[in-house]
Amino acid sequence: MANLFEAIPEALPEELCEEIVSGRAVTVERIVSRGHTSPDTGWYDQPRREWVLVLRGRGVVAFEEGDEVTLGPGDYLTIPAHRRHRVAWTDPNEDTVWLAVHYD
Amino acid sequence: MANLFEAIPEALPEELCEEIVSGRAVTVERIVSRGHTSPDTGWYDQPRREWVLVLRGRGVVAFEEGDEVTLGPGDYLTIPAHRRHRVAWTDPNEDTVWLAVHYD
Repeated sequence: MANLFEAIPEALPEELCEEIVSGRAVTVERIVSRGHTSPDTGWYDQPRREWVLVLRGRGVVAFEEGDEVTLGPGDYLTIPAHRRHRVAWTDPNEDTVWLAVHYD
Repeated sequence: MANLFEAIPEALPEELCEEIVSGRAVTVERIVSRGHTSPDTGWYDQPRREWVLVLRGRGVVAFEEGDEVTLGPGDYLTIPAHRRHRVAWTDPNEDTVWLAVHYD
């Protein structure tokens, strides 16, 4: 057993991203943001669908076409493959812990 | 956007189980327990691996060979395919919200 809120480094110069499940057509990642935005430039443009959940903290996902969604604890959304998006803001005062499920 | 802690019925005569992601080789379910145990008789014996996370509340997963694991918020574990297990206890005083990822 492990815990998603543990093993978070004291210093987090960059967003932390760790794969915690790896299957035939799925990966699950834990992401920890501390005021970070991502990617550094441009947009994520992913070949797989992504289901993303905020477990703790708060973040804003922005889409290229202009929509912005603010997610807090328990909030989730599905991002279709190749829908260009970025993490435009995360809370600088609290760690934001995300779960991302990338799947076919 | 939706929230895993919302849309929980006031009355929960049985454990609530809803599929929230369905992919080629993965399903993600939200499960809400209120003192429930499951399955009603015997053991789960599943063809796929399961990654299970407790988001809120507390539950005990028991394995046929005798191990028991208590999971609280943020705790997760992976259950191999066909490892027989059951939910032996959940908190009767608080909803336990689980996320279960079944995958190949």
